[in-house]
Amino acid sequence: MKSLVYHGPGKRAWEERPRPKVTDASDAVVRITRTTICGTDLHILKGDVPTVADGRILGHEGVGVVEEVGPGVSNFKKGDRVFISCITSCGRCDGCRKGMYSHCANGGWVLGNTIDGTHAEYVRIPFADTSLYHAPAGTDESVLVMLSDILPTGFECGVLNGAVKPGDTIAVVGAGPVGLATLLTAQLYSPAEIIVIDLDDNRLEVAKLLGATRTINSGDGTAVQRVMALTDGKGVDVAIEAVGLPATFGVCQDIVAAGGHVANVGVHGKSVELKLDKLWAHNVTITTRLVDTVTTPMLLKSVVSGRLDPRKLITHEFKLDDMMKAYDTFGNAAREKALKVVIRDD
Amino acid sequence: MKSLVYHGPGKRAWEERPRPKVTDASDAVVRITRTTICGTDLHILKGDVPTVADGRILGHEGVGVVEEVGPGVSNFKKGDRVFISCITSCGRCDGCRKGMYSHCANGGWVLGNTIDGTHAEYVRIPFADTSLYHAPAGTDESVLVMLSDILPTGFECGVLNGAVKPGDTIAVVGAGPVGLATLLTAQLYSPAEIIVIDLDDNRLEVAKLLGATRTINSGDGTAVQRVMALTDGKGVDVAIEAVGLPATFGVCQDIVAAGGHVANVGVHGKSVELKLDKLWAHNVTITTRLVDTVTTPMLLKSVVSGRLDPRKLITHEFKLDDMMKAYDTFGNAAREKALKVVIRDD
Repeated sequence: MKSLVYHGPGKRAWEERPRPKVTDASDAVVRITRTTICGTDLHILKGDVPTVADGRILGHEGVGVVEEVGPGVSNFKKGDRVFISCITSCGRCDGCRKGMYSHCANGGWVLGNTIDGTHAEYVRIPFADTSLYHAPAGTDESVLVMLSDILPTGFECGVLNGAVKPGDTIAVVGAGPVGLATLLTAQLYSPAEIIVIDLDDNRLEVAKLLGATRTINSGDGTAVQRVMALTDGKGVDVAIEAVGLPATFGVCQDIVAAGGHVANVGVHGKSVELKLDKLWAHNVTITTRLVDTVTTPMLLKSVVSGRLDPRKLITHEFKLDDMMKAYDTFGNAAREKALKVVIRDD
Repeated sequence: MKSLVYHGPGKRAWEERPRPKVTDASDAVVRITRTTICGTDLHILKGDVPTVADGRILGHEGVGVVEEVGPGVSNFKKGDRVFISCITSCGRCDGCRKGMYSHCANGGWVLGNTIDGTHAEYVRIPFADTSLYHAPAGTDESVLVMLSDILPTGFECGVLNGAVKPGDTIAVVGAGPVGLATLLTAQLYSPAEIIVIDLDDNRLEVAKLLGATRTINSGDGTAVQRVMALTDGKGVDVAIEAVGLPATFGVCQDIVAAGGHVANVGVHGKSVELKLDKLWAHNVTITTRLVDTVTTPMLLKSVVSGRLDPRKLITHEFKLDDMMKAYDTFGNAAREKALKVVIRDD
């Protein structure tokens, strides 16, 4: 089968690999009909994720059709339409049994990381019963693939951890796909004001379409002062970091109100300065999280009902054979005005 | 009246000052019968707290008898025995109306900071109705003074913010008076294991008497490894920082389990390194708080019922006229084996 293979920092190839088979009783093999590229895949390509070995097929998001299941799988059968969780969970370890699937002792984020991923014609999914979801009939598959990662990530790491509630003033720092997914899902809790901060005017325009009540281009270095001016000098109830840089985490610390929350969503490669000399008495809560995908069933219902519409996050579609071009486009997201790039193989 | 006055970094004097009067309708003047010295008073004397001006009477903890009340005070009258909250709250600003008294727009931590404090024969308490508590008849006043600050601080900033729950393994880093108050109040929520970490063997002995299930002297630099060994390499559910230094905050980051809490209690004078490159995916919650004293009524009931006994925290008693000696003793706490130093004037 064709697949997108990582060959060390800066190197990727579209090459032939053997089709995966069921190797464990709990496995399913899924034929991919939709997938998409994540910012994390670009981090891997830069060489920032040391767990990913040369030869790994990338990708942790996908929709498809079950091709084969192992004898231990009871929830899925050949021919079922499914979408794939970015988090693989055994359902039986200590982490899973308390709902922290991200820290599954036998899974977690493994797809396109420590085992082969979804950027291929087929993928093997371990623990299929607890790592796949049924795709409701008639649902747009390009929309369903947003449920693999960015919707639950934005919602769980940003909105739930940030404890967004009605009447809040919140700020989302970073209007990339995950920041915009946070913006979308935050509205399930009806905050009064949503300020979105980014360097890219195009993304800020999209943020407005998706429900931001204010946008701030932070390029001139005055974002903190402007947020404080908008909030009578008090700051925001919830500051959500959706970039993964020390500077943007710093902005969140500077704009959070006393009693407020800083919810980290971004993937960080460096430690950051925590201003405890100011914050020790500021009654703040700072959270981090790798998505657990515990809210995926709820988010699916919200998508199916139309309450949540992630369609505007999708800016490009490619055929599976154009995977390399899809990576080129997503890798130049600002120039290409790219948000989510969907790859299809009907 | 006699009072302990701050005269700039390193300088304090026991000197004659005018007795305070009611100046606002909500004021009470209290004759002090018990007070105690806080680590924060020592920070002030080092010059670390820039809001404290030369000439300020120190102290924010106390028990006493109401001498005079303003016409707006309805909960207290002359002759009432009371104890004083370290947090002064107006009860009507936005902060107070959501229970965040620490950030009262008209109060907060003001005693012995921006207004004269309790290390004197008399003290003026603004917003007396919402800043004083009735002292139950027959309760030891030396015990009640522990309710002014350290019991609610340890409980709210450490135990509640850390979300300590039955079955948890928790670590308290720092066995000074506030760390020990955290150890005591944590037991209200029945954690399975309480590990107390400090450099001082005497304090660790006291920690054992007060309910620590393990103690670790961190002097040899192996505290993190020893905690990880005690927890099968997983770390603790809750790590409580009760020192206020970058190194001890670092220990908390290193020993917290995935899904766990780091609750900061210590007063920090410097920013710290936050290891987000490790923690972004570790599902942790980090909290800070200046005590709100919202749990003082509950803690009082726990003390009166005997469920909570802070008596072992009191190592020394001095007469009011020996205030300078009390400061000398508390200022050399390790050598003097001092925890809480009570000053009495019956």
